[in-house]
Amino acid sequence: MKEQLHIIKIGGNCIDDKSVLIPFLMKFSEIQGKKILIHGGGSIATKHAALLNIDQQFHNGRRITDKPTLDIAVMSYRGLINAEITSLLQSMQCNAIGICGADAGLITAEKRIVNDIDFGFVGDINANSINSDMFNHLLEFPLIPVIAPITFDRFGNLFNTNADTIATMISIALQKIYDVSLIYCFDKSGVLSDPSDNNSIIASLNKSKFEILHSQGMIQHGMIPKLDNAFHAIESGVKTIILTSPDSLQSEVSNIKGTRITP
Amino acid sequence: MKEQLHIIKIGGNCIDDKSVLIPFLMKFSEIQGKKILIHGGGSIATKHAALLNIDQQFHNGRRITDKPTLDIAVMSYRGLINAEITSLLQSMQCNAIGICGADAGLITAEKRIVNDIDFGFVGDINANSINSDMFNHLLEFPLIPVIAPITFDRFGNLFNTNADTIATMISIALQKIYDVSLIYCFDKSGVLSDPSDNNSIIASLNKSKFEILHSQGMIQHGMIPKLDNAFHAIESGVKTIILTSPDSLQSEVSNIKGTRITP
Repeated sequence: MKEQLHIIKIGGNCIDDKSVLIPFLMKFSEIQGKKILIHGGGSIATKHAALLNIDQQFHNGRRITDKPTLDIAVMSYRGLINAEITSLLQSMQCNAIGICGADAGLITAEKRIVNDIDFGFVGDINANSINSDMFNHLLEFPLIPVIAPITFDRFGNLFNTNADTIATMISIALQKIYDVSLIYCFDKSGVLSDPSDNNSIIASLNKSKFEILHSQGMIQHGMIPKLDNAFHAIESGVKTIILTSPDSLQSEVSNIKGTRITP
Repeated sequence: MKEQLHIIKIGGNCIDDKSVLIPFLMKFSEIQGKKILIHGGGSIATKHAALLNIDQQFHNGRRITDKPTLDIAVMSYRGLINAEITSLLQSMQCNAIGICGADAGLITAEKRIVNDIDFGFVGDINANSINSDMFNHLLEFPLIPVIAPITFDRFGNLFNTNADTIATMISIALQKIYDVSLIYCFDKSGVLSDPSDNNSIIASLNKSKFEILHSQGMIQHGMIPKLDNAFHAIESGVKTIILTSPDSLQSEVSNIKGTRITP
């Protein structure tokens, strides 16, 4: 039987709100055994870009990361958010180490291929991008990696990479060694059948049920990339995948309320 | 005989100037064996504070670090500069890991005691602040720590700490295990007898010679804290201490031109 590994992603507004973030980190610190935390960016980068008068460009709702925007992302995600989370976890007797993809060669990305549009410094990754041996070394240390969503290409370039995708690819890469529970924590209590009702949690979702709900317009647009990641993980052998809110996190995975992804 | 460890500090304008920084990092990557790089802040934090209209307050030439100033320091030093240096070193086949004091509990500071003036989020450290076991673990990995000058207090607070002092205290703490060479790289070729002549390097400096030169006004004001650190290191048992410029760095320490500190 493989050893348990919890891989937990925290994103969205939760990161900006200390009254949500701190109780979440306390719950995270109480989880026994090996664990990894991946965080998103929150709104700090957007706020800083506005203060610095850096125009944010979008194409079909997707941000274009020019060099000034990348610098702000690296400063906000890899700098401020990552150091604050690491320092808070250390104060909770959790031996966290803040890292990004460049550190110890952990996550190598490729610049997104330019077809119609150049998205700039956006790095695409797959499960082969993950340096599993190095992650395993850190976990055996034992250290608790806290990962900022910045990757690199081995030629000295840094990239912005989606934090859900990082959590997914690390889970797929490490499930060969560990019994992985992948938990995406975000602003809702799970996938909701009625977006305005946080109690309308769909307890269990497989691909065919998702496709039916999607065709009926029952899945919020913002959930699609997250669910694409979740289904990619389950199809790649990750056994436990849960979408939930930060306050629903529990050390005992079987007790977590939220949406479970099933094959 | 103890194993060699190179501890190298890079600071000043060198960090802002890629035409100086990249050749320096290439020289650093060529040094064989165990090594640690500590970097200062350059002018990025000051530029960003100005762009964000954050007033910089000083007392007798020393910066007061209020919370917005700390955030900018964490973003610039722990975020941008540290990630760029780590990524560049990785591109040079140097297995760097970017860290700050909070990571893995490496450097614990105490907020500077308030006497007449509150310097804000400034952390003071001594050799006991250094988690030698954890540094040794990382070096044995083998990984090459790249350290941003941000520390923490185990209660969730981050601090700005002088990078020369960090290099000094790590050297003192690790010289029990290693044969440490501590090399401060900065904008001059060493301690100069004539500040306007970069060839007027004082090849060797001990405390009594320093005190004579200092009393004669022959030591530039900005050099005093750096030399205080250097003399503290030599008095604490660090055997090799050199002040030099980034372009003078060499794998063979005995060949490095600059100022050697002697007991």
